Amino acid sequence: MASENKKFSKNYSAKRNYDANPAKGINKKKTLNSKNNKKKPSGSRRTAKKAVPSIKVAFLGGLNEIGKNITLFECEGDIVLLDCGMAFPDGDMLGVDLVIPDFTYIEQNIDRVKGMVVTHGHEDHIGGIPFLLSRMNIPIYGTPLTIGLLGNKLKEHNLYNSAKLNVVSAGSTVRLGNFEAEFIHVNHSIPDAVAIALHTPAGVVVHSGDFKIDCTPFLGDMIDLHSFARLGHEGVLAFLCESTNANRPGYTATEQKVTASLDSLFMEASKNRIIIATFASNVNRVQQIIDTAHKYNRKVAFSGRSMVNYMSVAEELGYLKIPENILIDIDMLNRYTPEQVVLITTGSQGEPMSALSRMAYSDHRKVVVGEGDFIIISANPIPGNEKTVGNVVDELLKRGCKVIYEGMYDVHVSGHACQEELKIVQKLLNPQYFIPVHGEQKHLRKNAELALSLGMDKQNIFIGDIGSQIEINVDYLKELPPVPAGKVFVDGLGVGDVGSIVLRDRKHLAQDGLIIIVASLDVYDGHVISGPDIVSRGFVYVRESEELLDEIREKALRILEDCADNNIHEWGTIKNRIKDDVSKLVSQKTKRSPMILPILQEV
Amino acid sequence: MASENKKFSKNYSAKRNYDANPAKGINKKKTLNSKNNKKKPSGSRRTAKKAVPSIKVAFLGGLNEIGKNITLFECEGDIVLLDCGMAFPDGDMLGVDLVIPDFTYIEQNIDRVKGMVVTHGHEDHIGGIPFLLSRMNIPIYGTPLTIGLLGNKLKEHNLYNSAKLNVVSAGSTVRLGNFEAEFIHVNHSIPDAVAIALHTPAGVVVHSGDFKIDCTPFLGDMIDLHSFARLGHEGVLAFLCESTNANRPGYTATEQKVTASLDSLFMEASKNRIIIATFASNVNRVQQIIDTAHKYNRKVAFSGRSMVNYMSVAEELGYLKIPENILIDIDMLNRYTPEQVVLITTGSQGEPMSALSRMAYSDHRKVVVGEGDFIIISANPIPGNEKTVGNVVDELLKRGCKVIYEGMYDVHVSGHACQEELKIVQKLLNPQYFIPVHGEQKHLRKNAELALSLGMDKQNIFIGDIGSQIEINVDYLKELPPVPAGKVFVDGLGVGDVGSIVLRDRKHLAQDGLIIIVASLDVYDGHVISGPDIVSRGFVYVRESEELLDEIREKALRILEDCADNNIHEWGTIKNRIKDDVSKLVSQKTKRSPMILPILQEV
Repeated sequence: MASENKKFSKNYSAKRNYDANPAKGINKKKTLNSKNNKKKPSGSRRTAKKAVPSIKVAFLGGLNEIGKNITLFECEGDIVLLDCGMAFPDGDMLGVDLVIPDFTYIEQNIDRVKGMVVTHGHEDHIGGIPFLLSRMNIPIYGTPLTIGLLGNKLKEHNLYNSAKLNVVSAGSTVRLGNFEAEFIHVNHSIPDAVAIALHTPAGVVVHSGDFKIDCTPFLGDMIDLHSFARLGHEGVLAFLCESTNANRPGYTATEQKVTASLDSLFMEASKNRIIIATFASNVNRVQQIIDTAHKYNRKVAFSGRSMVNYMSVAEELGYLKIPENILIDIDMLNRYTPEQVVLITTGSQGEPMSALSRMAYSDHRKVVVGEGDFIIISANPIPGNEKTVGNVVDELLKRGCKVIYEGMYDVHVSGHACQEELKIVQKLLNPQYFIPVHGEQKHLRKNAELALSLGMDKQNIFIGDIGSQIEINVDYLKELPPVPAGKVFVDGLGVGDVGSIVLRDRKHLAQDGLIIIVASLDVYDGHVISGPDIVSRGFVYVRESEELLDEIREKALRILEDCADNNIHEWGTIKNRIKDDVSKLVSQKTKRSPMILPILQEV
Repeated sequence: MASENKKFSKNYSAKRNYDANPAKGINKKKTLNSKNNKKKPSGSRRTAKKAVPSIKVAFLGGLNEIGKNITLFECEGDIVLLDCGMAFPDGDMLGVDLVIPDFTYIEQNIDRVKGMVVTHGHEDHIGGIPFLLSRMNIPIYGTPLTIGLLGNKLKEHNLYNSAKLNVVSAGSTVRLGNFEAEFIHVNHSIPDAVAIALHTPAGVVVHSGDFKIDCTPFLGDMIDLHSFARLGHEGVLAFLCESTNANRPGYTATEQKVTASLDSLFMEASKNRIIIATFASNVNRVQQIIDTAHKYNRKVAFSGRSMVNYMSVAEELGYLKIPENILIDIDMLNRYTPEQVVLITTGSQGEPMSALSRMAYSDHRKVVVGEGDFIIISANPIPGNEKTVGNVVDELLKRGCKVIYEGMYDVHVSGHACQEELKIVQKLLNPQYFIPVHGEQKHLRKNAELALSLGMDKQNIFIGDIGSQIEINVDYLKELPPVPAGKVFVDGLGVGDVGSIVLRDRKHLAQDGLIIIVASLDVYDGHVISGPDIVSRGFVYVRESEELLDEIREKALRILEDCADNNIHEWGTIKNRIKDDVSKLVSQKTKRSPMILPILQEV
């Protein structure tokens, strides 16, 4: 640890000079910590080297995975949570609807949890909250749109009335135990996104949330870089920084580029019906589309449940301005000529049940697409969705639609910071420790490499995993034993009742199906009274495989009779013999290994 | 049709002038067709307008899909096949190992099939041949490496001795009935690839195979553009052109770029063990790696069964030149220091059972990777594989490896022509009809758009689907009724015995598992003698759901007894009642719909 400290000190001295001369004029924010003022946390770390307070950070989600973001901060006994998202299941999580964090560690420490701050209203940041609140009623703090969207979600789960939701505007600070959480406006693909600066007795820890730098956003202000500068000036202990686009060089283009592209596409499609798919949560994008439609005298209809939901919340809270008489119900669409309408729809990720997919596969009850339709997918495929999005595009093309997708035009810009932006914010904050979060290993590593390239010492960078816990203070960064964390599967109404055994069985069944062997045995001598009957599903087309099924029946009968003759009555033994021998037979004949399920009944 | 002809004539007149003045000096190729010389096929179409012969083309695979390329050409009764590939299953083809074409139409016309020409040795062009030959012994014609690789494959299927394999070198022509098939050298990601010009009584039809233009290939000659020019000069009826990269503007970079990148990476990794994953079939890439290894005094080992197989064939046939004493067995790897070796491995697509995946997940018997390993993935993910490749990269990074992947350096160039190359070859051939092949709808459309942009009339372009059949001659292009075609699933030893019902069951089982309800009934009165017993798999974790399973048992028992009391003995009726009621109960309690399987036995 000694060498670490040395390196840190050396590294940190540059900042110290800066700290020694705090430019108080930058901002009026208190340096926090009125309650526990034995030590000044930032700015005067050097002098408090003997018994510096620490902050512990437990990563309950969002590392080595996309989504399910949740972080736990603990300082002098008080705990604050940051975000609680969900993730979509991987391809091998068969039948799972969604994935949420494991709340065990929160449950174990619930009496010390002072609240949760939420950075923005995306599912990977708030989607796990209903499942958390159904077990623990933690007060939640977020900006108006975030709380609005969360409230809507909690209503669906019948949790709204009991929930303790608190609206905080960007630029404000709330006290949670001995934490002060400062909400800092950032640009992202949903309005009202914030980074959070946690002012604690141990120093300031900044979590970026999801962000990018857009100097000319379509709506609202540019990211509040001044606050990042002020924090950096005052001294930041640690910066937890999102890593989504850490592999992308340069900058994310401004939203204004999309405005220009939409405009030219509307001109190109002047004779066509226009259908635009985008993320329902991308309120500003929808606003852009509405404004362009307004300019070209087109009516606008929404399609897709989540699109309608998001827009109603966004409009209610004033985040979406819909010109008078422009909105029409989707049922009215056919009363207008193609060039008079724009349909804004969900399904930009090729989700099988989404509105756009239904249109592509002629399964939408209200919209039939075909020649003359001009379809714009204003989103990029999230990694893993390339194939499904591609399939939807193909189907639309087959129906004669013109389709604008992927990088064909600038109809989409990312909501996340690329390398240059990541570096700028990191340099503004000038943290002692750098902790990349939100991303798979390749993203986390790349973000860490960026920090290295900016001169950060390797030992002051921490790449964690789900369940990692660290203790940090001005003297050291130390990894603690991990805390309970993981993936909890939601399937239908069940939360956590689908685990590895159930999934293993589903995978087995999916691969080769199953063969059930049922027999009734004489309760006295074990001989077969009825059966064995063979039932198979997902294995072979039965009518063409009668011979094989007969062989299986023969084999099972011989084993059962043989066991009875030899006084083997232990069902476990009998079943295992059937399983083994039938497996061997089936494998030899078909090179497949279906699940073999012997079921015996005593009569 | 009249308007079509007019347009065609107008369109074609430019070429006619060219035809009228054939530059005989370009090449010495015969114009073919010594047998059936009533009409001169190309060059003199105009004069034979009354009874022009036609050529029929049936698309048995490769349209609206990636892989499984196979095309059938028919002229005056004779049939020639071109390629016979396999495809990998989509995510929803659960448990399927590979997908091959439906051979019904070939079988129906087998007596007229004169042979199959093969363009190159990739699986999507030859992978279906063993399944075809096991049913019909069609003579096959291909270049030396292609036939070598195919021969190897046929040995695995015990078909080698009976197969009629014929080696044809690029630049030669073979006669197949009234077809003459001219083999034209092209550049691709495997050596010895060719395009095929079919000279027929109806004219010349050119199929591009897979190709790109590389003016400075790493090995071998540049694509034989002279032959394309000559054919264009003499007159081409139709051009079937691959569409894989039709969405990519510009040119595919030369293989020389990879040479330069490898060189600089070898320098960078001078202290590391180097592991490079690439396609086993990319013989020239492997040669590049070997040459670079030789330059830097490193030994080379191969990992992965297909890598070893391909390299032994390629070396035997002289396509791979391995310097003396450079090759070591993988077992010898640990006798050398890291900087003394290069391991060339399969797994560039993240295939779960491949050598690289096993290394990433610490499951490789011979190679343990970790810090100090410098891993280069010299391939791009095929669409749909992005996620699995990404996961492998993440695992390698977690183990501390340095990983070069995707577009990080120029360690890979595509084997397919981009837009400018597609246009050049099309213009050289100057065909009357243009038919984009090999690709999903988006690729086919884009390739068609390129033809339009070159001035081709829309009516002279045909975008087909699997099973489409067309008739073409100098006067018209006409779509005929479709022929049998489709996807045949190979699962283990079974070919075609997994169909839609089996897949539907597998999907159902994969989603929510199953519940089996077994009971023995009295043969006389139908009352329950034993059971009902409930067995579930892939549904819920049983130990935590006993209550629900008890409820299901209760419900089933009540239905069975109720049926017995009311003299309902028809098993179909009883089973349906159980299915319906249990489904309802389960859905209400869990919002899941597992497969419900009642099994009754009479005692």
